[in-house]
Amino acid sequence: MDGEGYGAWRSITAPDAVSLVFGFPYPESFPNEELVAAARAVFDEEGDVALQYTGGEYAGALADVVAEHARDRGVDCDPGDVVLTNGSTRAIDAVCRTFLEPGDGVFAEAPTFMGALNLFRGYDAAVTGLPTDADGLDVGALETELAARRAAGRPAPKLLYTIPTFQNPTGATMPLERRRRLLELAAEYDFVVLEDDAYGALRYDGDPVPPLKALDEEGRVVRVGTFSKTIAPGVRTGWVVAEGEIREQVERMNPGGTNTFTRGVLARYCREGHFERNVEAFRGEYERRRDRMLDALDAHMPPEATWTDPDGGFFVWVTLPEGLDSAALLPEAAEEGVLYLPGEHFYPDGGDERGERGLRLSFSYAAPDEIDRGIEGLARACQRVLDAR
Amino acid sequence: MDGEGYGAWRSITAPDAVSLVFGFPYPESFPNEELVAAARAVFDEEGDVALQYTGGEYAGALADVVAEHARDRGVDCDPGDVVLTNGSTRAIDAVCRTFLEPGDGVFAEAPTFMGALNLFRGYDAAVTGLPTDADGLDVGALETELAARRAAGRPAPKLLYTIPTFQNPTGATMPLERRRRLLELAAEYDFVVLEDDAYGALRYDGDPVPPLKALDEEGRVVRVGTFSKTIAPGVRTGWVVAEGEIREQVERMNPGGTNTFTRGVLARYCREGHFERNVEAFRGEYERRRDRMLDALDAHMPPEATWTDPDGGFFVWVTLPEGLDSAALLPEAAEEGVLYLPGEHFYPDGGDERGERGLRLSFSYAAPDEIDRGIEGLARACQRVLDAR
Repeated sequence: MDGEGYGAWRSITAPDAVSLVFGFPYPESFPNEELVAAARAVFDEEGDVALQYTGGEYAGALADVVAEHARDRGVDCDPGDVVLTNGSTRAIDAVCRTFLEPGDGVFAEAPTFMGALNLFRGYDAAVTGLPTDADGLDVGALETELAARRAAGRPAPKLLYTIPTFQNPTGATMPLERRRRLLELAAEYDFVVLEDDAYGALRYDGDPVPPLKALDEEGRVVRVGTFSKTIAPGVRTGWVVAEGEIREQVERMNPGGTNTFTRGVLARYCREGHFERNVEAFRGEYERRRDRMLDALDAHMPPEATWTDPDGGFFVWVTLPEGLDSAALLPEAAEEGVLYLPGEHFYPDGGDERGERGLRLSFSYAAPDEIDRGIEGLARACQRVLDAR
Repeated sequence: MDGEGYGAWRSITAPDAVSLVFGFPYPESFPNEELVAAARAVFDEEGDVALQYTGGEYAGALADVVAEHARDRGVDCDPGDVVLTNGSTRAIDAVCRTFLEPGDGVFAEAPTFMGALNLFRGYDAAVTGLPTDADGLDVGALETELAARRAAGRPAPKLLYTIPTFQNPTGATMPLERRRRLLELAAEYDFVVLEDDAYGALRYDGDPVPPLKALDEEGRVVRVGTFSKTIAPGVRTGWVVAEGEIREQVERMNPGGTNTFTRGVLARYCREGHFERNVEAFRGEYERRRDRMLDALDAHMPPEATWTDPDGGFFVWVTLPEGLDSAALLPEAAEEGVLYLPGEHFYPDGGDERGERGLRLSFSYAAPDEIDRGIEGLARACQRVLDAR
């Protein structure tokens, strides 16, 4: 949710409704005990420096942990390529500060993460939303847009922001071929690709696809990530992976803010093996919730509705039957006991009919039985409106 | 130290030398046990939300704690006036982002905190250093400068940055009359006063002087603070106190980054009374160290050297005998077993003779016996150079 804006939907309160609104991890996922134990161990071993400005060896080791995780995903990364940040919003912000001047062009999937759209707006960037389909960013449409701009003498974007794996809000994953083509276009038109991989570790089905950064031979991809979905949002620790000059610039755009307490605790937590063990457990729980949601959608939604079929991550994107409006439907849905995020918020420009008919459901937070109850409520709300026509 | 730049002094390594370089708290000050206990208590009481994006009641209560502390210092502050940040460098950064456009004027004490100078430079601000004396910022000189600018048709600064209490690096504190006059000038010339009060809670002698924010009737003072000196640097938690529109803007310039884990732990720590108890203990320890340093300076330094006499904070500013250069002296000092920060780094423009002859000593970190040893080494280094002339 962090930075997901302040739309009118915030004014709708329905305390007993099932919330499918936010990309919150489920409460039982929080590794409270392991973090307390990790804090104790860090203080036992390096109590004289753990809380100092510099931090101790554990705090220093967190960049190694992030680099290891990146290498596990196929990214050629060493700790010197990692800039740790206070969460991934801060990571995206540092990248924006590095590259964007007012009026610069930013391309992004439409729909995309609201928090990133808010940041781009804050830099007075000119955001262009690119179409997406079941395979994520439509790279053919990107190519057409780039060529049209070149033909018209208009500049290419500075930055293309993408969530290529288990996208927020659609759940879609870009296949390898599209990724390669995207990087070719980035080289041809000379723009930076900002890869947001907040969900990439949470795959429930299918074969892994290499991150864009793993395919990047030119140092043109800047990768951001976070522990918010794999440890907990409250530890508010993210990172940028980039090389050389770009890495230096991002570092300069991220002054201060080094929470050595949190860094040390997280590094110890990871070194103890809790990270892998817990992520494995999270995958099982999220898969179960996703399946419950997809089954319930199948069982209850009107036949004209469609939805995505994510292999991982937190979200399903629903397209309502023609003529239904997800923002207008929300009060009805709340009455029927469910809350979600209307699609218009995920588009730089509201998204017209796609935004109107679209909505995001999060399966990460609610318990499986609640998910059933929520989807039943959503289906009833749709039916009420359809019946009234 | 956070953000204190990358001067040539960094290349000097003297592992056995006493470091009087950084404003580090002494290692025994770190409340490791209390923080682990606070983490355990937070998780016991609200384990289902403590690590969520939103955090629990403890995380939410940290703004109340900060507002209480501000009220204890005479500032009319409620929790809605507080923007929590990841440390005070981030707090200053958020204020810069709110007010500064490239080329805007910033006034600051000269010498002042290097980290702030680095931030101002990052915003391409035109920084003007104002003279200081034993009573801190020379408000008469400020008035002269403002009047001269007006007469020349040049704009007043957007922002005046000051550390009015136990200044970094001089240790000086502005008396009440100067504070009032500064605020009158701010009103007359229409600029914002950025009050950095990192050290204000650490007074060892004399009567409290109200913070600038306590004297601010126009909402013209933006106050920043930090727990780095009163809990520990590693918890990396600071804040901005401001009202109304300014507060809203600062909040927007501080996206994401909410470490609910740390916030919850700190709020619990404070609610348990550890904050007051520990700050009381810190004051005793820092006073002892300050006294050792002043006594050692009296006992050993050449008669032409002078130094400040701080009532609180972490620092003493030494002015070397005429003809000595603090940067040139550093290698000799390292040989004699002591390290410090040469004065030139604290000036926007190097500071000419004031920067050359000045140096900052921190008494916060080294043990009292080490402080003796360090000052003896500094005195020997000075004497070597004086003898060689």
